[in-house]
Amino acid sequence: MPSAESGFGFQVHRTDEAARFGEIRTSHGVIHTPVFMPVGTAASVKSLTTDQLKHLGTRHSALGTPEIILCNTYHLMLRPGVDLIERLGGVHRFMGWDGAVLSDSGGFQVYSLATMRNVREEGVEFRSHLDGSLHFLTPETSVDIQSRLGVDIAMAFDECPSYGLSHDEVERSMERTHRWAKRSLAARRNTALFGIVQGGVYPDLRKRSVEEIGSMDFDGVAIGGVSVGEPKEEMFGVIRSTAPLMPRDKPRYLMGVGTPEDLLDAVAAGIDMFDCVMPTRNARNGSLFTSEGKMAIKNARFADDAGPLDPDCSCLTCRTISRAYLRHLFVSGEIAALVYNTIHNVFFYLDLMNKVRQAIASDSFAEFREACLTRLTRERES
Amino acid sequence: MPSAESGFGFQVHRTDEAARFGEIRTSHGVIHTPVFMPVGTAASVKSLTTDQLKHLGTRHSALGTPEIILCNTYHLMLRPGVDLIERLGGVHRFMGWDGAVLSDSGGFQVYSLATMRNVREEGVEFRSHLDGSLHFLTPETSVDIQSRLGVDIAMAFDECPSYGLSHDEVERSMERTHRWAKRSLAARRNTALFGIVQGGVYPDLRKRSVEEIGSMDFDGVAIGGVSVGEPKEEMFGVIRSTAPLMPRDKPRYLMGVGTPEDLLDAVAAGIDMFDCVMPTRNARNGSLFTSEGKMAIKNARFADDAGPLDPDCSCLTCRTISRAYLRHLFVSGEIAALVYNTIHNVFFYLDLMNKVRQAIASDSFAEFREACLTRLTRERES
Repeated sequence: MPSAESGFGFQVHRTDEAARFGEIRTSHGVIHTPVFMPVGTAASVKSLTTDQLKHLGTRHSALGTPEIILCNTYHLMLRPGVDLIERLGGVHRFMGWDGAVLSDSGGFQVYSLATMRNVREEGVEFRSHLDGSLHFLTPETSVDIQSRLGVDIAMAFDECPSYGLSHDEVERSMERTHRWAKRSLAARRNTALFGIVQGGVYPDLRKRSVEEIGSMDFDGVAIGGVSVGEPKEEMFGVIRSTAPLMPRDKPRYLMGVGTPEDLLDAVAAGIDMFDCVMPTRNARNGSLFTSEGKMAIKNARFADDAGPLDPDCSCLTCRTISRAYLRHLFVSGEIAALVYNTIHNVFFYLDLMNKVRQAIASDSFAEFREACLTRLTRERES
Repeated sequence: MPSAESGFGFQVHRTDEAARFGEIRTSHGVIHTPVFMPVGTAASVKSLTTDQLKHLGTRHSALGTPEIILCNTYHLMLRPGVDLIERLGGVHRFMGWDGAVLSDSGGFQVYSLATMRNVREEGVEFRSHLDGSLHFLTPETSVDIQSRLGVDIAMAFDECPSYGLSHDEVERSMERTHRWAKRSLAARRNTALFGIVQGGVYPDLRKRSVEEIGSMDFDGVAIGGVSVGEPKEEMFGVIRSTAPLMPRDKPRYLMGVGTPEDLLDAVAAGIDMFDCVMPTRNARNGSLFTSEGKMAIKNARFADDAGPLDPDCSCLTCRTISRAYLRHLFVSGEIAALVYNTIHNVFFYLDLMNKVRQAIASDSFAEFREACLTRLTRERES
């Protein structure tokens, strides 16, 4: 059962083959699934003010306003620190955001960012990538920090093994993740809490993990440990074999994935929630997602192109400026280029998910996906 | 007489001692003076989207929307090029801006940015600071470029001598500026055109220059060649002796100045128009203007300060986030910090000018200025 205080609930409204259309209820509004969560690592979706995040599309429509964003326990505990955010009323008030927030548990970042780590059964000791200071995260402290941040959905503290480890190594790690999952659950307070399935690329381990995590009293279940360097076919092997074994009545979250094509494929496999840094990071590199594939805005062919970035898009960038102007800003090194790019890329992901939900609701997801994939892979840039 | 096509007009409505409250009419709206023009060097007010520039304050009020911005001929002719901007419908359409635009003539930038310059009576040959390419600017080509950019107000092409030159050197340069002013005027097409007074720090030269430029058929008169390294007292010596000699019935523009205190002092001397990179540049360095002086947002004392940046300010930044959050974004290197800072600093300048106009209109400018200066110099940061 979810924590009474969290106000959490989930209902699947419609299923078109494996693809599901549903609603997550939180105390910061209803989230329509399948949903993409923009990443706001340090309590900021990179390059955007909170006001911009609320107005990615027209000012007079909620279309293009995210219903939920993600922030990172690891980054926030190191800077500005959980005491500070708690004292200032939690992460929502801190950043002026009234939608829902999900936090990562820090497990993944401790493995990929911390400069030193010492994993014990109790938890992980690590040094900050910022200043080398020493910290200790356990399932209990991670869940406690997430509660104090005031997020709507917290994640269990897990161990995220890198790609290329042996079956035995991944199995031992997974078993620790399962023990930590129970400890995370016992520490749940005023948030919803999701469990994380591990098991690397080994089908038998993924099966054991999803059965174990799926049987626990989590509010949702996530697939972790994917997109960590394995070939894409292996990643989709994991997703396609794991998703059908995930509880039907809980949200299914695929962590850290992926391209628009990946999202369509994962929705087809029955996934409800996504997060990925790709729209914000690519925006800063001048790589834009459009309905006809990726576009490098610095390309000289856009120099005198008076048309909108993506004629099929109704984000603020596409509605107000031309490719020529955007290219000019980007090649001139103007900060505004990164802002315009980010507005577009984040809107593109949100809008894609909106269309996905409409397609599922009208029993036409398979056709929609097919048509999308055909256009998306008609890449503008090789 | 102004060019018929430009739709330009100016009227002084009220004078409180030397301070004047007036209106400039352009085909892109009415500009209330004294006015501060945010600098949009490369057709972008640095760090802001055009949409943000239109909504620095509340979304439902014009308070905090600039009536006019400045862009630079030198930068735009080099990148993206005037042919491109003309083909795309002019600088307003290029950046999606429907307010007025004034362009600098390139004179100042040729002297301060170009990597090689060869000044002849005909004009200036120079190499681009971007790629070393060779260019030639004359009064005729500068005014032609500004017309083709489609700006509302163009500036005459002048020579801007550096600080420290002898009386003779500055005199010869000034005389060339006067000859170039006549040629600029002869080249005027579809824009208003302002003349520029030079003469360095030499009172006799400034007097000759303002009499000469003031007697020509310009639509407005500017003081150029200040804030180029001279002590502030010398700069104000120039302003206070020159302004009273400027035509009463034309807008008076002080180029490239200055701090909020400078603006108040210059308004008192009878200046109507200002531009300065200070609000945008300081914003990127984390230096914020407030009603009680400058503030370095990275200062540790703001770490857990839940209050707004400036309690007396109604910009989007001050209305939506705290000092603590802004400091967190700035020390974390988040792009959004630069955006929030720029919104505030530009709004602060616009709002100051708005209050200046109200004070002049109610015959209380001297008291207003006194009260402002007392608060502004109560510096938060030494």
